[in-house]
Amino acid sequence: MLTRHLTHILRTSLCIGALINTAYPAMAEDNATPPEPTKRNVILIIGDGMDDHQITIARNYLKGAQGKLQLDELPLRSTAQILTVDESNPEKPIYVADSANTATSLATGIVTSRGRIATNAGDGQNLSTIAELAQASGYATGIVTTSSITDATPASFISHVTTRVCESPSLMQPSDDHPSWLDVSACADDKISNGGLGSIAQQIVTGNTDIVLGGGLKHFETLSESGSHGLIELAESNGYQVIKSLEELPNLASDKKALGLFASGTLPTIWQGEKGRSAEKPNPSLLNKVDWRLGSVELPEPMHCERNPEFGDTPALKQMTETALRHLSAQTGQGFFLMVESASIDKQSHSRNPCGSIGELEQLEEALESALAFAEKEPDTLILVTADHGQAAQLIPNHSIYGGSGVAVYSPGQIARIKTPENQIMAINYATTKDFPYEDHTGVNVPLFSNQQGVDRVPSMVTQPQIFNIMADYLNLLPETETP
Amino acid sequence: MLTRHLTHILRTSLCIGALINTAYPAMAEDNATPPEPTKRNVILIIGDGMDDHQITIARNYLKGAQGKLQLDELPLRSTAQILTVDESNPEKPIYVADSANTATSLATGIVTSRGRIATNAGDGQNLSTIAELAQASGYATGIVTTSSITDATPASFISHVTTRVCESPSLMQPSDDHPSWLDVSACADDKISNGGLGSIAQQIVTGNTDIVLGGGLKHFETLSESGSHGLIELAESNGYQVIKSLEELPNLASDKKALGLFASGTLPTIWQGEKGRSAEKPNPSLLNKVDWRLGSVELPEPMHCERNPEFGDTPALKQMTETALRHLSAQTGQGFFLMVESASIDKQSHSRNPCGSIGELEQLEEALESALAFAEKEPDTLILVTADHGQAAQLIPNHSIYGGSGVAVYSPGQIARIKTPENQIMAINYATTKDFPYEDHTGVNVPLFSNQQGVDRVPSMVTQPQIFNIMADYLNLLPETETP
Repeated sequence: MLTRHLTHILRTSLCIGALINTAYPAMAEDNATPPEPTKRNVILIIGDGMDDHQITIARNYLKGAQGKLQLDELPLRSTAQILTVDESNPEKPIYVADSANTATSLATGIVTSRGRIATNAGDGQNLSTIAELAQASGYATGIVTTSSITDATPASFISHVTTRVCESPSLMQPSDDHPSWLDVSACADDKISNGGLGSIAQQIVTGNTDIVLGGGLKHFETLSESGSHGLIELAESNGYQVIKSLEELPNLASDKKALGLFASGTLPTIWQGEKGRSAEKPNPSLLNKVDWRLGSVELPEPMHCERNPEFGDTPALKQMTETALRHLSAQTGQGFFLMVESASIDKQSHSRNPCGSIGELEQLEEALESALAFAEKEPDTLILVTADHGQAAQLIPNHSIYGGSGVAVYSPGQIARIKTPENQIMAINYATTKDFPYEDHTGVNVPLFSNQQGVDRVPSMVTQPQIFNIMADYLNLLPETETP
Repeated sequence: MLTRHLTHILRTSLCIGALINTAYPAMAEDNATPPEPTKRNVILIIGDGMDDHQITIARNYLKGAQGKLQLDELPLRSTAQILTVDESNPEKPIYVADSANTATSLATGIVTSRGRIATNAGDGQNLSTIAELAQASGYATGIVTTSSITDATPASFISHVTTRVCESPSLMQPSDDHPSWLDVSACADDKISNGGLGSIAQQIVTGNTDIVLGGGLKHFETLSESGSHGLIELAESNGYQVIKSLEELPNLASDKKALGLFASGTLPTIWQGEKGRSAEKPNPSLLNKVDWRLGSVELPEPMHCERNPEFGDTPALKQMTETALRHLSAQTGQGFFLMVESASIDKQSHSRNPCGSIGELEQLEEALESALAFAEKEPDTLILVTADHGQAAQLIPNHSIYGGSGVAVYSPGQIARIKTPENQIMAINYATTKDFPYEDHTGVNVPLFSNQQGVDRVPSMVTQPQIFNIMADYLNLLPETETP
């Protein structure tokens, strides 16, 4: 499988040589003393669904229209072209992705089909991930997320299944306990009893990632696929210290692997809409319902964002990130690969909660600050920040540019009108799905940022799989023939 | 007014020193022979409404999902933060712009309110434009657009009025001939008889821009404000050669100013939807209308893009751009400033015609190719490509990511399903206004690209007014104290 993977790399990284000018410190000539080995680290921060609309909305709220986010201050801004293929015909593109196939692009450098977790479209072969390749080369590895650690984005770095729904042993076969819409039939091939690697949760507890922090406890408080052990017990017997609360975070032993599970599923977001409100439908008058040129419309009442009371003592993304950085830099070896995900920019946008997305983007900003502070001390640290795909939220006018037409102009979707700290109203529209409880993704290019280490390494535009190549090249994980 | 403007520049360009490392060739020391004066040129290409959705949609269609546009090959990609203020309280931000205030940001470096053309929010003072400052410093200047040359974007570079609707003498006062929704009352102050500068068209024909090419003939086939002369006659007496057709393009005399008016209003787009179709509403079944969990939906039939028969012998943006480059480089002086606008990415998105927008973006690509070819020969040419604001179009899934839910999932807006040359379907959603004939803008950040001359001059993020500063600095139009 690795051979096949490297062939893929050979195919997809041909342009890397041209992109990278200074990837490695100059080697000493012939018989001179070899240089001190220096540690190299990669921190990949993923804002799930964090397209430019989400960033603009968060900037307006957090910093004001003229303000700058931490992201905006990074020295390099590029863009990533999102690629997805059709499962039934992998030669054909699909124009809108999901988090499974995009995380697979980032983690493996290979374009796959929607729903797949580090497996190939069509033939289902497992694809080596950057975390696995780094581990095999002596790097420590870590995963931090505000979602379940079994969710598509983190899963694609540390497991391989046919489809993202195969999160835990109980989800590997049909059951009356599953919601009616949940189709787990494709998980059968991944069952250990069928020669597969098992569910995502089981692959995590039997794996070797040095630190994994996030939510998803419910997927671990269950028996293994064979029914012989609980997953937590399996994790502990595999050398993991398992923690479940914020207070335990500082007490992780650096000589053990760490597994932190801080919520049953996704971690609560730090913010919510006023009194829990989401976007709402405009309310047209009877006359306007009859003829759009007549009557009037009542828009949703403006609202503040407020702290989500459910957040409680959930660890902040920043706290988990700092814990992971401490843990990983305490390991011996070449350095580390760390993936940090702010997951609920996406999830809250699916549910039409702009305040939830804004708070989650603020969490990403704070985690980025911690990463930048770490890179100040350890300069051989490449920090990349990107999104996996676009999301439904659109920043629309509070007063339409056609407001002078005398007609009630309003979105057919659902709208949230947020009172910003600069005391103006920011209107956000969700209109990719009618009435359905969740919004869809979009196919827009997403931003890619880096710290100084990425300047001269990241071109002005990349495909998402090229981000894998840039990281793998930085950590010297590509075969010799591939290095520039 | 210039003093006030320079104060504005002083205020808004404080950060420029830090951004620009190599803005000017090193000056010879003391008594050494002064270096040969080199010409410097700026080509600013504006894709009206060309946000990342529009670019991704066009890329998928024109080059395929894995393809690259000419834009994508440019060495620098940054982003521009769009700023707008409230007319009634210019200290307050507005989160969604129009083309008038954004073009004013680009042209003058000053943030203003929606609708204003190179005039200040609140007090209405005229703001010097980059074209005027360049002209005053001995540069040639040109404007090329696929819209009326009196439309907001081009107008903001070469005229000053209170509001964009003051396009021609006949629009300077109320009239029964105006559509009922058109409010021209704010134009009164700009009337020459009231001490103003007159309509946009009249300012153009009495101005000194070396070449102005685009549409909008209807605004010039009219008498001047005083009624004494026709505007075309005024233009000719002011030294303009006026042309109205493609065949005349090669015959422009380089020793005369040139005014080209190739359509009554906006130039026709090169492409349209199959048989002129636009996006359409999904058609839910009766059952689905009653309850979204039931029934089904019929989506609009997929369609090809096709050549717009109305395009006929309209000059392509590339042809106008090449003509302008030839004309401007034939002028004596320091070099030139040229603004090239692809206007109908925006206009066709307002009207929900993705094929129109795609064709217009292809026109921008071709004009960019011409600009790059010119810069090959004249390396002291800064090319910047940007958009003025975001637009309504969203690239949504053809098959929802919730397609497995068993429920009909579809957008509440209007949808076009485009058959791409790679034989897949790309779905585009317009959902910022319900039933109203035009879609709204959005407030998203927009991309900013440059050729090699912009690398080290353009930081990873700018405000839109900073683009003015970068151009003005390149042409040495800023006061001495401002140069780095």
